[in-house]
Amino acid sequence: MMDSPQSASLSVEELHEVWPVLSIDERLEGFRLLPTSVADDFFLDLSAREQAELITHLPASERRTWVRLLPPDDLADLVQAVAVEPGQADAILAQLDDASRREVNVLLAYAEDDAGGLMNPRFARVRPEMTIDEAIGYLRKQAREKVETVYYAYALDAEQRLQGVLSLRQLFQAASDKKVADVMQHDVVTVSENTDQEVVSQLFTEHGFMALPVLDEQNRMKGIVTVDDIVDVVQEEATEDIQKVGGMEALEAPYFEVGFFGMLKKRIGWLLVLFLGQMLTATAMSSFEGAIERAVVLSLFVPLIISSGGNSGSQASTLIIRALALGEMRLKDWWRVARREVLSGLVLGFVLGAVGLARIVVWQEVAGAYGEHAFLLGCAVALSVLGVVTFGTLAGSMLPLVLRRFGFDPASASAPFVATLVDVSGVVIYFTVASLLLRGTLL
Amino acid sequence: MMDSPQSASLSVEELHEVWPVLSIDERLEGFRLLPTSVADDFFLDLSAREQAELITHLPASERRTWVRLLPPDDLADLVQAVAVEPGQADAILAQLDDASRREVNVLLAYAEDDAGGLMNPRFARVRPEMTIDEAIGYLRKQAREKVETVYYAYALDAEQRLQGVLSLRQLFQAASDKKVADVMQHDVVTVSENTDQEVVSQLFTEHGFMALPVLDEQNRMKGIVTVDDIVDVVQEEATEDIQKVGGMEALEAPYFEVGFFGMLKKRIGWLLVLFLGQMLTATAMSSFEGAIERAVVLSLFVPLIISSGGNSGSQASTLIIRALALGEMRLKDWWRVARREVLSGLVLGFVLGAVGLARIVVWQEVAGAYGEHAFLLGCAVALSVLGVVTFGTLAGSMLPLVLRRFGFDPASASAPFVATLVDVSGVVIYFTVASLLLRGTLL
Repeated sequence: MMDSPQSASLSVEELHEVWPVLSIDERLEGFRLLPTSVADDFFLDLSAREQAELITHLPASERRTWVRLLPPDDLADLVQAVAVEPGQADAILAQLDDASRREVNVLLAYAEDDAGGLMNPRFARVRPEMTIDEAIGYLRKQAREKVETVYYAYALDAEQRLQGVLSLRQLFQAASDKKVADVMQHDVVTVSENTDQEVVSQLFTEHGFMALPVLDEQNRMKGIVTVDDIVDVVQEEATEDIQKVGGMEALEAPYFEVGFFGMLKKRIGWLLVLFLGQMLTATAMSSFEGAIERAVVLSLFVPLIISSGGNSGSQASTLIIRALALGEMRLKDWWRVARREVLSGLVLGFVLGAVGLARIVVWQEVAGAYGEHAFLLGCAVALSVLGVVTFGTLAGSMLPLVLRRFGFDPASASAPFVATLVDVSGVVIYFTVASLLLRGTLL
Repeated sequence: MMDSPQSASLSVEELHEVWPVLSIDERLEGFRLLPTSVADDFFLDLSAREQAELITHLPASERRTWVRLLPPDDLADLVQAVAVEPGQADAILAQLDDASRREVNVLLAYAEDDAGGLMNPRFARVRPEMTIDEAIGYLRKQAREKVETVYYAYALDAEQRLQGVLSLRQLFQAASDKKVADVMQHDVVTVSENTDQEVVSQLFTEHGFMALPVLDEQNRMKGIVTVDDIVDVVQEEATEDIQKVGGMEALEAPYFEVGFFGMLKKRIGWLLVLFLGQMLTATAMSSFEGAIERAVVLSLFVPLIISSGGNSGSQASTLIIRALALGEMRLKDWWRVARREVLSGLVLGFVLGAVGLARIVVWQEVAGAYGEHAFLLGCAVALSVLGVVTFGTLAGSMLPLVLRRFGFDPASASAPFVATLVDVSGVVIYFTVASLLLRGTLL
């Protein structure tokens, strides 16, 4: 699609289509081919990271137009995205008028994943003592200036303290000569500047708000967080959790935008930890070397048995990780979870164990693969699977709760981590069961 | 908190706090203890599933009040939630006035995860030929009747075809005597009734809309999807993906709300498939039984080697699964992904292999654990790890793409599934490398 530079313009859809795979030079070229009427919208739709990339590669003369297009919360994100390169943040801030620069600087002082870092300081305000008609007139005036999001109107007193809130629907519904104070809702759900974004997004999903007001410690209103920003937060948090569940550090950027070595760094840490952990299986197995020497057939089932524990464990851990993230479950539910998971583990282990026993008995009938003690061997395998699956399910379900209890991220109880933990125990369980059951026959 | 039935009322926060762990009878009791002024909001905040549970347990005389409180899209969700019990859906519909019942019935005809199933048929409409002042007056009238979401005003012609859209900000900004048609945006992003909710949510996250209009095949406007519903969609889709990545079927309800046997059914299927798959490791190992008999020490490293492939594979698969879900990557990028992942696998495998070799050499020095050929054994382990990790990374990254290519859900390439796939190949790689390297020494 990029091979027709003759054509003077390009549609937004065409550029959107190819954008992810373009180099920065191609992106610049494509962006300049957009008709001016749509270039604004295209720019506003980009992620902060992509806006930053474009902006830093534009000549200084063109930067100002684009920078001034952005509302303060998006500008703060942009500045944060360019801040990795020294001097760039200041260069962006220098393009702004004084009022906007002050707003952005205030926002930059908040942590990126707090409510303060998400909020927009430009919200629609009214006074409680205004009439409905005055309020609508005042909102129209604010919209003409610089308020982006007119969805709720916030009634503030002279000290900027929040007194109540009106949805536009309520405002439109009310008789013209009523007072704002008579119509507004007094009981407002608010967040503080330092509320974590995960808590903020849970409030949004629980209550279905369009926007939430952010207050400082003196109850003065500082801005609003709108639900469209929450969609991004929810996506981000889910991506982090999924990547952690897959056994790596969260990537924090799209796959193709992370450099080769940056990507390796996110992956090697956990792989090394897991590799070192798995070495314990070699240690555990070496203490049963004598048993293996006497009955090599025992070693054939090691991967089968330990992986069944790992699989059931990773099911349990992802269930609990997600339930915790969605607030469906709390730490104090641990005993209820433990009972339920042990029971599940016993049933699941019983079914898998029975299948394992059947497999060995049938194979013995068909091919005589496992010698005269095949049935006993099958029983040892089945019992081990029962034990390993039960243990794996319990360990997988408890680990995220333990991590949360000690202030770590439950999502670190990844599928590979749980599998590694359970593998070592699986080796011990299997060879112990085998020694007890097969003494005097195979061993 | 529930042990003080003497106190006449209960706060919303108190009830929210304990809600997840209450039985249905306790929920009913708690709900009735709420002051009437807040009970409305509490009810509206519940999930459709929870609303349905309450409603079906309330006496018929009280149902109507609560049912009539809900907008048509939430009512449709509620009806769907009660529809598992025969007769309940009709009982709910019977509580509605004729106009609402018609609206709900129309919504019920859509698939739950299409745009049509998400939309609200009550949106704010204006005529292109109205003046701004007339439009504002008309919106106030609609708000007094039954429009829930006044965020954008949609300009429709006499045949209900969408001509343009105005945000309230634009409406408020414009001079009173201008025409709607002069101010409105003509180029509107729309979705059709049958657009899948995952596509709809990608549009929202890409563009940051507050609402999207839904059109039928004749371009007539049927309703709007609002961003607050999209937050739920995004959470749901992420939950499904995380649970699939953990190696089970998506649960489709909160942990504690799924019955014990329902939960087992979601888990046993994949566990059985994986268990049967893992049996191939036993088969693979049995063809190397002779080698194990000659050098039992080889068997000690089987879990270590195969799990390193599984771990690197599950990292790769979760990365790709998430990148596909977020639209960061397409099928045609497969070659770029494959090259990158093979290179990653080689580097990661080299590092892990080196660590493995060092471990064996050191252990031999310290404890003499592995006999005179320890260094050669170490080399065999290191080379196998290199091969298994490279293969695991490649297989893990390609599997989600292959699944998508054939119309399956990429998230089915779960960590345990990839691990199982790689384990079998790991056994073969390890014993093949060992036979080649150790022939004449250990073997």
